[in-house]
Amino acid sequence: MNKITILIHCKDRPYIIASVTNFIAGNQGNIVYIDQHVDREQNIFFMRLESEFESDSFNTEVFKAEFKANIAERFKMKWRIYSSERKPKMALFISKYDHCLYDLLGRYNSGELNLEIPFIISNHDTLKPIADSFNIPFHHIPVTKDTKEAAENKQLELLEKHQIDFIVLARYMQIVSSKLIDKYPNKIINIHHSFLPAFVGAKPYHSAYKRGVKIIGATSHYVTEELDAGPIIEQDVTRVTHAHSISDLITKGRDLEKIVLANAVKLHSNRKVMVYNNKTVIFS
Amino acid sequence: MNKITILIHCKDRPYIIASVTNFIAGNQGNIVYIDQHVDREQNIFFMRLESEFESDSFNTEVFKAEFKANIAERFKMKWRIYSSERKPKMALFISKYDHCLYDLLGRYNSGELNLEIPFIISNHDTLKPIADSFNIPFHHIPVTKDTKEAAENKQLELLEKHQIDFIVLARYMQIVSSKLIDKYPNKIINIHHSFLPAFVGAKPYHSAYKRGVKIIGATSHYVTEELDAGPIIEQDVTRVTHAHSISDLITKGRDLEKIVLANAVKLHSNRKVMVYNNKTVIFS
Amino acid sequence: MNKITILIHCKDRPYIIASVTNFIAGNQGNIVYIDQHVDREQNIFFMRLESEFESDSFNTEVFKAEFKANIAERFKMKWRIYSSERKPKMALFISKYDHCLYDLLGRYNSGELNLEIPFIISNHDTLKPIADSFNIPFHHIPVTKDTKEAAENKQLELLEKHQIDFIVLARYMQIVSSKLIDKYPNKIINIHHSFLPAFVGAKPYHSAYKRGVKIIGATSHYVTEELDAGPIIEQDVTRVTHAHSISDLITKGRDLEKIVLANAVKLHSNRKVMVYNNKTVIFS
Amino acid sequence: MNKITILIHCKDRPYIIASVTNFIAGNQGNIVYIDQHVDREQNIFFMRLESEFESDSFNTEVFKAEFKANIAERFKMKWRIYSSERKPKMALFISKYDHCLYDLLGRYNSGELNLEIPFIISNHDTLKPIADSFNIPFHHIPVTKDTKEAAENKQLELLEKHQIDFIVLARYMQIVSSKLIDKYPNKIINIHHSFLPAFVGAKPYHSAYKRGVKIIGATSHYVTEELDAGPIIEQDVTRVTHAHSISDLITKGRDLEKIVLANAVKLHSNRKVMVYNNKTVIFS
Repeated sequence: MNKITILIHCKDRPYIIASVTNFIAGNQGNIVYIDQHVDREQNIFFMRLESEFESDSFNTEVFKAEFKANIAERFKMKWRIYSSERKPKMALFISKYDHCLYDLLGRYNSGELNLEIPFIISNHDTLKPIADSFNIPFHHIPVTKDTKEAAENKQLELLEKHQIDFIVLARYMQIVSSKLIDKYPNKIINIHHSFLPAFVGAKPYHSAYKRGVKIIGATSHYVTEELDAGPIIEQDVTRVTHAHSISDLITKGRDLEKIVLANAVKLHSNRKVMVYNNKTVIFS
Repeated sequence: MNKITILIHCKDRPYIIASVTNFIAGNQGNIVYIDQHVDREQNIFFMRLESEFESDSFNTEVFKAEFKANIAERFKMKWRIYSSERKPKMALFISKYDHCLYDLLGRYNSGELNLEIPFIISNHDTLKPIADSFNIPFHHIPVTKDTKEAAENKQLELLEKHQIDFIVLARYMQIVSSKLIDKYPNKIINIHHSFLPAFVGAKPYHSAYKRGVKIIGATSHYVTEELDAGPIIEQDVTRVTHAHSISDLITKGRDLEKIVLANAVKLHSNRKVMVYNNKTVIFS
Repeated sequence: MNKITILIHCKDRPYIIASVTNFIAGNQGNIVYIDQHVDREQNIFFMRLESEFESDSFNTEVFKAEFKANIAERFKMKWRIYSSERKPKMALFISKYDHCLYDLLGRYNSGELNLEIPFIISNHDTLKPIADSFNIPFHHIPVTKDTKEAAENKQLELLEKHQIDFIVLARYMQIVSSKLIDKYPNKIINIHHSFLPAFVGAKPYHSAYKRGVKIIGATSHYVTEELDAGPIIEQDVTRVTHAHSISDLITKGRDLEKIVLANAVKLHSNRKVMVYNNKTVIFS
Repeated sequence: MNKITILIHCKDRPYIIASVTNFIAGNQGNIVYIDQHVDREQNIFFMRLESEFESDSFNTEVFKAEFKANIAERFKMKWRIYSSERKPKMALFISKYDHCLYDLLGRYNSGELNLEIPFIISNHDTLKPIADSFNIPFHHIPVTKDTKEAAENKQLELLEKHQIDFIVLARYMQIVSSKLIDKYPNKIINIHHSFLPAFVGAKPYHSAYKRGVKIIGATSHYVTEELDAGPIIEQDVTRVTHAHSISDLITKGRDLEKIVLANAVKLHSNRKVMVYNNKTVIFS
């Protein structure tokens, strides 16, 4: 049984859904999931569709070519088709904080995540023992002002060599360069420890404490050129009171960061996220 | 422009989606919303679909007949087709509590609800002034052990005369009879002041206090023969502590009851709820 | 039975709690509630205490004078003592939105609020019928660029005449002047329809939509000179998705605004809020 | 600097707070935290108090004796006094599920928990590698119908030898015997994977799925003779939809279980929980 996932967006106009579903039926495909969204402000149509093809003769590449010629070009679609056979490959970038690392590797180990982790990159070697205990290759690539470019080239080399699909910055604590962002557009997921757009930048828990907010949050988003301003994938919040110190906020925040990042990773790796106009459409 | 909403469920099998979307396209309909769900345990397929038909010659009754002959019978579907022209008619049953009444009428007044309220029925006349201030006809139908059957016949007469589509028990505080339930299956919405299935029956806030729970809730569900056991439409919860008295729970619970009931009413009146196997599928 | 509430803050140092509790015991008072907080960053001590005095000869004014002489001056306290006999008086400022108005008056009517509402002020007469239906005097004081100062003087006159303790801006939609703020410091409660400090200023739901946040919020705060930057009393949030239009956000936000404002009003009127350093300490 | 925590409950009557605070001041103690609660239904007074004593000559045992003679006996108090020097010792009982184990050990490692973990007991050896990687002694004590009593005696021996203060069942999956419960009353913390009192007993996620609830939960409570009916310490919930399978509920539930159990462990180990009448008073 072959199974594919199709993601589409294009200018909205009549008969898109009928044309796509008809095309799939014409290829002996059975649609097992369909969801769509229309952005009425921008007049953009989005669709996510999963289809199964029983025939032995089904060939994903042939299907893609025909889909392109018969459907995508007609509606001027942006589109992606994924075979469910291939799990996406995720590179983990970390620094010295271990909570998101433990959380993601624990989920990975338990089979909760539909992805592969070929390696972990860190600018410190502090967390190597954790990577070791989960049997994941660990690359220590220190980053200083002088070595930043060389470090990045090393990172890129590893990413390419392992055909990495997306990168997760699990509290990486380094600004990622334009070069990397350009190579992995909407494919670098960051976790920011505030409820964006509140408290952009460094030390958000300190700012939250100073402002006296009654709720703190965490936000997972795609990395873009502008700091903490990329498309938001997932957010969550928790209540705090005047009695919580900055250190309490940091501790409580860790629980949010773990869960928000894990949810964003799941949504992305299950191909449930589309990006348009610096916002996400999440098909869940 | 004609717009219809189609709700379908049937045994799952290949090509349902394609057949339906194809049929609509063949009738010059443009699908503007589609969502589906498969219950893998029961192997049941559910779909909700909105479609627009530009043609002046479109006729909902003709379309229904053709849908039945060409699609519904082939897949042995249970199905409903609604024209968006006709707003559903809701009867409000109340007693002496005013919070859900104020809330629903406030939303009704502000245009938030896609429905009509031809009248309010109450077993007390306490809240008549509120009905009056919103200009909604108010029928005082007292219910005693002896008059229960006569009262119910009066209710049924009003419901039929006004072609009521569904009934909302906004803290009505009376057990509704089998006769009414049979006539309005999955069309009587109740609000129960607990997080079902916890604390079924009377005085749930007292039971919650006694058990020492740290979270209380409210549940909106369709009324069935078994008390508080019907299909759940919506639930919400809020935190409480040891410091909250029973009276505090009642006060906090009122805010839950209002919002949970209003959400259930919106989901039902927008035809977003399907019921199967005493559970709901909510297309939102 | 006389009951008082004492609110205290001062520089933290040893024996404050013992001195205060001892003083109350010496006056035949029985403490029925005590809570305290120390801001470790600023080294400030806060306390809230409720005490009952059975004696017929108890006199609040005499007690205050002795508390001042024996305790407050010794510890250089800022302090307030309230008799529970006197309910605080709240003035409601509204404009054209009715949801917070209905909500507050519904709670007032049901006895949920420990306060009196001597009158409502509005710059429009749109909502007068609601005030009338709840039998609350309604003053229509139009505000234009030219009449702003005169209007404000009229407001101040009413506030003073009725010995108003605090003001609630229930979506009043007008910037309040420095004169009013100075006269009612930390006594003017506003509801802002965003999760502050995100989306300060006008049209926050539009900004939230544009940024693509996955959670929206509402914030109740004391009004200070700087717009939407005063001490936060209460906040709450709700989830949204890409499928929610701006108008959906506005509708969902209304439910947040109502509950957040009502909670802030309850906390303030029950003398559970202390302000220091542009932040609140909430004793609940 | 000596620091102690006092927990008290007794029949409510006047002057308890004043007497206690006075006694502490008389011993040159400075109260740094005080909170109290009165259960009005049962007329029971509860208090939690932290106090610092600067004097070198302060002796906790002497203080306890004097507190007993001068205060506790006078008010017929149940009371406990803890020195902050001694961290409570927690025994972890586990089985084959690793999510709560990873979570607790991760927090333990990061210094988030104010406790010591002398050892882990499991009826399987599956998770020994995790215990090893955190350097915590692991005792494999298999439990079968025939060996249950012997196994329990082994457990008790270890608990006594290490002077364990409380036990955490981190998804231990075995019914604990009356003998153990009697020896550790309100000192055995369990995590149940439902929103109690809903779905008591085995397979709560299956029951939640069958009932079609829209919110699932987790509950941490003290173990008593009656299954899942002990005093509730902490609860949390998360939203689910018709689209979630049983396996999705299990996955989502794991995140709840981890956080709810961790919070309960923190509250207990920080001596913030009092139990009365099968309910908890939580001083936070």
